Amino acid sequence: MNEKREAPIGVFDSGVGGLTVAREIMRNLPTERIVYFGDTARVPYGNKSRESVLRFSRQIVRFLQTEQVKAIVVACNTASAYALDTIQQELTIPIIGVVKPGARVAAEATRNKRIGVIGTAGTIGTNIYTDYIKKINPEITVLGKACPLFVPLVEEGWLKDPVTVEVASRYLKDLQDQEIDTLVLGCTHYPLLRSMIGEIMGESVTLVNPAYETALSLKRLLEERELNRPKPKEEEEFPYRFYVSDLAEKFTEFANFILPYDVSMTQKIDIEKY
Amino acid sequence: MNEKREAPIGVFDSGVGGLTVAREIMRNLPTERIVYFGDTARVPYGNKSRESVLRFSRQIVRFLQTEQVKAIVVACNTASAYALDTIQQELTIPIIGVVKPGARVAAEATRNKRIGVIGTAGTIGTNIYTDYIKKINPEITVLGKACPLFVPLVEEGWLKDPVTVEVASRYLKDLQDQEIDTLVLGCTHYPLLRSMIGEIMGESVTLVNPAYETALSLKRLLEERELNRPKPKEEEEFPYRFYVSDLAEKFTEFANFILPYDVSMTQKIDIEKY
Repeated sequence: MNEKREAPIGVFDSGVGGLTVAREIMRNLPTERIVYFGDTARVPYGNKSRESVLRFSRQIVRFLQTEQVKAIVVACNTASAYALDTIQQELTIPIIGVVKPGARVAAEATRNKRIGVIGTAGTIGTNIYTDYIKKINPEITVLGKACPLFVPLVEEGWLKDPVTVEVASRYLKDLQDQEIDTLVLGCTHYPLLRSMIGEIMGESVTLVNPAYETALSLKRLLEERELNRPKPKEEEEFPYRFYVSDLAEKFTEFANFILPYDVSMTQKIDIEKY
Repeated sequence: MNEKREAPIGVFDSGVGGLTVAREIMRNLPTERIVYFGDTARVPYGNKSRESVLRFSRQIVRFLQTEQVKAIVVACNTASAYALDTIQQELTIPIIGVVKPGARVAAEATRNKRIGVIGTAGTIGTNIYTDYIKKINPEITVLGKACPLFVPLVEEGWLKDPVTVEVASRYLKDLQDQEIDTLVLGCTHYPLLRSMIGEIMGESVTLVNPAYETALSLKRLLEERELNRPKPKEEEEFPYRFYVSDLAEKFTEFANFILPYDVSMTQKIDIEKY
């Protein structure tokens, strides 16, 4: 029996958004332990340079390794774009990001070869989804649309609000006119707007949630490497730990809003020390 | 004749918002030269610790001094709250922030001693306006309201949009119910929503624009110290210089949106070197 099976999975993001990825791991890999880190002191990554995002990601990976994680999930689109490939070469444990699983499923799902991608201005600016999808199938047309108001609307908690419906209808109009049949929710906050976006786009458009696809990728990966954790025999202590780099209170509030747990034990650490 | 009169004024903010302060200086002190710095690589300051904001502000002040500025305006509410008093003691040239001028005028303007302050969650969280206003007159009741969607709505350019009207009406409802007679626009982006906010609040509520009041304070200060620049005799080169710490393109776009000039000469500098 592989002793590493018992070790936790490290998940990190620039802030709170990656909790939607953690949530999908909790749902789809319910036996696994998780250590989550949100870099709330340095959020957002989208306007930082490639060098800064790589430096931040390396620090976080070093911190997660002090927690003896067996695998790492980069639950941040910008860090997946700027840092994942480099860090993958530096690590012996497996590390995956949110972009590739989302891009792969979108490329498989499209019938008319027209995929839309929505995300922050930063993510859309990197063209990361477009690049991955075109690597899989160069014949696919990828249309990116930045939706800068979605993150603050989600953070206000206005998930089913008429204001959010109006904003979403405007943002999505272009993509509807362009007749996409598949839409990637390319920002970790957007799964919280999933049902509204689905209603606006209609049943003919397949929504791809990279958070969900990443959890499934992680599941396959852990099974292949015999790193998946068996069901614990007894009731055990709360298997999730949450760390942030600043202002833990706001994080806890948002975590309690999207997770089915009372996340009161968030700890602040000094990430610059790693 | 004081040679320093010819020197520029340094203005800095965490990003683009402080351009509304620069704009008021351009309007009210039209003979002055300006060096503007926007810390776009590290924006926003609102979620950073006091220590970080002080370190960033010191770096920027050192940079502005290499441009031989004769005075500095901290056009950022967070930096005004966390760094201004400390830096004031370290400098020989005058430095002023946006908070004190706004607080002073609001305290003078209120008749019923009920003042509202709107700003980002960061600014409202620091209680900086409340503290200054209460120092002037402890009998005044100050009601703070965070409006986190205003900055992204302004940055989308949706200034007179029905969505923005709806969001503003909701945010301002509480303050209306509390019967304030004076409202401080406590975020550098908000002057761009001034006319809309004025329509919602009605004529009985005095709006205080700290950007404007700061420009007037600066004018008085320069005149008192004989540092104000006389009208140049001849046509001169463009008197404004703009620097940022990252992604100059987005900055230039926003600058051109709010300033009556074509700001195409924005330069990116490495602020960590200062």
